[in-house]
Amino acid sequence: MLKIGVLGATGFTGEKLVEILAGHKEVEISYLCSRIQDPVPYGEYFPRFKNIVDIPLEHMDVEKAAQMCDLLFLSLPHTVSMEKAAYLLEKGKKVIDLSADYRIKDPAVYEKYYGTTHLDQKNLDKAVYGLPEFFKPEIKSADLIANPGCYPTSIELALLPLLKENMIDKEIIADAISAISGAGRKPKLEYHFQNVSNNAWAYKPFVHQHLPEMSYVLETVSGRPAELVFVPHVAGIETGIISTIHVKLKPQSKEEQIRSVYAQYYEDCFFVRVKEHLPCLKEVANTNFCDIGFALSPCKKKAVIVSCIDNLVKGAAGQAVQNMNLICGFKETEGLI
Amino acid sequence: MLKIGVLGATGFTGEKLVEILAGHKEVEISYLCSRIQDPVPYGEYFPRFKNIVDIPLEHMDVEKAAQMCDLLFLSLPHTVSMEKAAYLLEKGKKVIDLSADYRIKDPAVYEKYYGTTHLDQKNLDKAVYGLPEFFKPEIKSADLIANPGCYPTSIELALLPLLKENMIDKEIIADAISAISGAGRKPKLEYHFQNVSNNAWAYKPFVHQHLPEMSYVLETVSGRPAELVFVPHVAGIETGIISTIHVKLKPQSKEEQIRSVYAQYYEDCFFVRVKEHLPCLKEVANTNFCDIGFALSPCKKKAVIVSCIDNLVKGAAGQAVQNMNLICGFKETEGLI
Amino acid sequence: MLKIGVLGATGFTGEKLVEILAGHKEVEISYLCSRIQDPVPYGEYFPRFKNIVDIPLEHMDVEKAAQMCDLLFLSLPHTVSMEKAAYLLEKGKKVIDLSADYRIKDPAVYEKYYGTTHLDQKNLDKAVYGLPEFFKPEIKSADLIANPGCYPTSIELALLPLLKENMIDKEIIADAISAISGAGRKPKLEYHFQNVSNNAWAYKPFVHQHLPEMSYVLETVSGRPAELVFVPHVAGIETGIISTIHVKLKPQSKEEQIRSVYAQYYEDCFFVRVKEHLPCLKEVANTNFCDIGFALSPCKKKAVIVSCIDNLVKGAAGQAVQNMNLICGFKETEGLI
Amino acid sequence: MLKIGVLGATGFTGEKLVEILAGHKEVEISYLCSRIQDPVPYGEYFPRFKNIVDIPLEHMDVEKAAQMCDLLFLSLPHTVSMEKAAYLLEKGKKVIDLSADYRIKDPAVYEKYYGTTHLDQKNLDKAVYGLPEFFKPEIKSADLIANPGCYPTSIELALLPLLKENMIDKEIIADAISAISGAGRKPKLEYHFQNVSNNAWAYKPFVHQHLPEMSYVLETVSGRPAELVFVPHVAGIETGIISTIHVKLKPQSKEEQIRSVYAQYYEDCFFVRVKEHLPCLKEVANTNFCDIGFALSPCKKKAVIVSCIDNLVKGAAGQAVQNMNLICGFKETEGLI
Repeated sequence: MLKIGVLGATGFTGEKLVEILAGHKEVEISYLCSRIQDPVPYGEYFPRFKNIVDIPLEHMDVEKAAQMCDLLFLSLPHTVSMEKAAYLLEKGKKVIDLSADYRIKDPAVYEKYYGTTHLDQKNLDKAVYGLPEFFKPEIKSADLIANPGCYPTSIELALLPLLKENMIDKEIIADAISAISGAGRKPKLEYHFQNVSNNAWAYKPFVHQHLPEMSYVLETVSGRPAELVFVPHVAGIETGIISTIHVKLKPQSKEEQIRSVYAQYYEDCFFVRVKEHLPCLKEVANTNFCDIGFALSPCKKKAVIVSCIDNLVKGAAGQAVQNMNLICGFKETEGLI
Repeated sequence: MLKIGVLGATGFTGEKLVEILAGHKEVEISYLCSRIQDPVPYGEYFPRFKNIVDIPLEHMDVEKAAQMCDLLFLSLPHTVSMEKAAYLLEKGKKVIDLSADYRIKDPAVYEKYYGTTHLDQKNLDKAVYGLPEFFKPEIKSADLIANPGCYPTSIELALLPLLKENMIDKEIIADAISAISGAGRKPKLEYHFQNVSNNAWAYKPFVHQHLPEMSYVLETVSGRPAELVFVPHVAGIETGIISTIHVKLKPQSKEEQIRSVYAQYYEDCFFVRVKEHLPCLKEVANTNFCDIGFALSPCKKKAVIVSCIDNLVKGAAGQAVQNMNLICGFKETEGLI
Repeated sequence: MLKIGVLGATGFTGEKLVEILAGHKEVEISYLCSRIQDPVPYGEYFPRFKNIVDIPLEHMDVEKAAQMCDLLFLSLPHTVSMEKAAYLLEKGKKVIDLSADYRIKDPAVYEKYYGTTHLDQKNLDKAVYGLPEFFKPEIKSADLIANPGCYPTSIELALLPLLKENMIDKEIIADAISAISGAGRKPKLEYHFQNVSNNAWAYKPFVHQHLPEMSYVLETVSGRPAELVFVPHVAGIETGIISTIHVKLKPQSKEEQIRSVYAQYYEDCFFVRVKEHLPCLKEVANTNFCDIGFALSPCKKKAVIVSCIDNLVKGAAGQAVQNMNLICGFKETEGLI
Repeated sequence: MLKIGVLGATGFTGEKLVEILAGHKEVEISYLCSRIQDPVPYGEYFPRFKNIVDIPLEHMDVEKAAQMCDLLFLSLPHTVSMEKAAYLLEKGKKVIDLSADYRIKDPAVYEKYYGTTHLDQKNLDKAVYGLPEFFKPEIKSADLIANPGCYPTSIELALLPLLKENMIDKEIIADAISAISGAGRKPKLEYHFQNVSNNAWAYKPFVHQHLPEMSYVLETVSGRPAELVFVPHVAGIETGIISTIHVKLKPQSKEEQIRSVYAQYYEDCFFVRVKEHLPCLKEVANTNFCDIGFALSPCKKKAVIVSCIDNLVKGAAGQAVQNMNLICGFKETEGLI
């Protein structure tokens, strides 16, 4: 049994990681920590885990984590991750980082969007972007995974096949709706039930910190320019991201060709389902699937692509476990269905 | 136009008061305050009020409040209200207090449940309990109204007619479900959308601070003993309280007599609707109604009474305005339908 | 008191109309009907209206409606409205039609999108499009109002000032999210609580029946071409539409000019609030406001405009009452704040 | 691999069964059917199962079911189950019936509450009540399981230890709140999102069809009388039942003894968690746990017990799989954590 640690086990993502790992047949959860002061059984901190995960939740101690575990998930705030990851890698551990710290290859862009200097350039170069559908070989041999952002997972999976095959124009507009869980567990007034329930709003239009990640991945993977407008929204739902993506089709892009390109790219990808109709959010809730559907305009020159994921699963913890499965040679779907 | 002030205009209750008062034809909102430092237009603090209420929200200044207003609503935390009320009454103002400070006549009971010594015994004696269906004459001539609690409004209206007419046993069990708005606007983790949505829990069984208020009112108004078990719950809903009340019927209490007693007590009470069937919560949402229904057990010796209100309207701000209407000689329903 | 009838008083829109009219000081609800067989008090059919609206809900009889009322709201399915409207107009009644029957001036377009031949060409020519912010003089003297669709209200108010002033390109992309109430009260599996709660999906991309209405109004009012891509969504919320609209700015369109154009168009429009920030849905819930905000891209060549309304109020019943107020010379805001 | 069939695979319970069975390591889903006419892949009927369960959903054919499967789950309407079960048992199959048909031992009581004559008296006598915490030995050797109702599971697990140990009075009052999913997937107006969201109501007070099941089990298992008042409620939540149960304590029942009795009864019961505090609903969502907590009144003569389950898991499909695990000698928790 592989020994696993989760650093940052009390956020929504860390909690979801523990939930998935608890049902995984090949691993043992050996170490859980957070900013808590005194240790407390995890099943007491989160009563829903009682009888399932009863090891202690401890104050974060990266040395202890290294001693007790073979592989570590970092579910930490950005900037904190890069401190811990460097130490753990030095100790020969495998690290899957769910923060943004190793996703953006250019430190200047990182600094612009995350407001702080990148401190671990060496590992930044080594980090593999953990989108298994496009980086499976690299992931299998990686020591450090930069687990993709939630919005990027949803939007990159929808666009990469079409962009690589030169089927769409570089001008792309994406509106996405996310559950509030994406914003984290801080007790802010904005996240109060009375404010979120039955509400919806757009935020950070054009300038969300996931934009440079998406632009970089879209352009480097496809080898083509991508000018992405991205407007994220929050709505009063508990789980998921639905992205509605507007593209202009190149003249040769017919409906059957689009369908065929998707089929070809994703035929061996269990967790991407290309639907005949537009997908809906609830069909991916609590799953590691990304459902994709599309429709053409009557003039056949435009298309809308809709992509749905569970933001905490395929958008975070599920994808992280999928990456672990690949690194460790487990069945790719283990723990995830 | 009567000049109105709301002290504590940023909580859920204060906000609802402003909403109702803004549509009231006989009053002018003249002063709004809270713990805010620098004044800001109310319609900026709460953007939904823009174009409707644009006077400033100010830092609380009770002297200014007294100068500018004829009648003040205190939507303040308990213990704060009693300081302000005393001053305002001295200045000859009418005061409607929505806190718990003047509801419980016995200072020792107040201290037991609210954890602090009562500081305004003099006005405690003068305060009129603002349940218009039972204290209308007293309210009309009152200077200080102790506006009832939300749970008490729901439960007292259901029980008082039956208790007064000696139709039920003194042993009563009430389970109630409230929207989370009753807990206030504090940004606590417990009130986070992800925790409240699709959740439900019981809290403070047997010892909720509204229990002594209910017991006192039930017993003094009916002149009979009442042994009430009260278990409040919170569920993932935005608005309302539904109380399910179990009573044992006295031998003479037949279905038609219960119906007839309710009809007799409430025939002139616009805001109490005795239904033929059990009421549902949504039918009173955003209204000042209390809907009441009941059903007898097959053996006819027991009954369950269900009572629904909007916790912020009939359970707080709406009832406060109803009290103001009575004090000021306005139409009782003004602003409320 | 003006005597009012509502034909189709049991749908979500008809119910909202009755709610608004019940609080309107200048009118009396005189006739309510639907497809019901035997008459029943309206406050029994919808228990929330008990004590408020207790006149009968009757089986639809357009002759009786004409006898009893001065002005009729038609909240009927499209194709049914045009039969009734013709009769009522002939009898000299004012008619505000909330269906789609008189919104689209070209019968061929109507037939394409609504699947049936238009049967009342004569009145189609006379009907005035009931968007008060742009057709106030025509509305004031109209006999027949084609009350705008919900999505069109939201999107036209956001775009018309910019399009008329030639500030944006003709290519426009709008993604909108609506509450399920827009789909009506049919008991379909798709609308079951378990399917809608926590769900979101796109539907009818490029081909929604509100598209030709929007295109027609945008082009005729502005005198400029508009190529609109429109993708509506449903999400698990009870109330409202939020539209996120992507536009390309003409070179002369700076932020301050956009703000100034909006200010100029809407300075006398009580129900349109141009916000400094992006608006959120809940701030317009249960109001007749349309809140509009916008943001420019970093390159200043693009903008996103976000527009929020309550789909049943400004998007239907509220706007219908606003139109009635204009026709009848009442205060424009009567019954609506 | 044990071959499994689900008769009635399109209701909420049948769907949940398929979800759980799809992740169970010891079984193979071999046959799925419902009232559908033409076969369709299950992952097409319910798109969320695509890639997971792609065998056909067929028109119900009990002979085919018997040929293809070793064990059958009947997730059928009551009265339909008893026809099918008899045939399957005759063919030597194991049957787990999730309907009410074999829960009530007295055919007269069955007829009174379910409105139809019981047609399979022979198997009624053989059926074992599938509450593993109290009938484990009988379940292990059963051919036919009467899987308990959702409310009964929640309430019996809370009460049986105390009743058996003579710690509480026979007079018991239980108020329970259920998700609407308990009412099934019929497209009724009552279940429309707009009616359920933010709503709550009581129904069938004193006479719910689960009452005789509970009374029978409580009395026969404990050997003591139980006079249960039961008032179920529905609230706008997707998942779960929370039962609030009022009991009077026998003089010898102290807090520590109650805790100790629960501990003794449930120490080997993985799926019952006795909490130190009152449990909340969300902690059991999507799990097979029953969480129980209690609190004593200040006078120590009364207690309230709160019991939470997921109505579709421990209240239906999860418990059915737990029963299958026992019958087949699998690990009791297989597929359930």
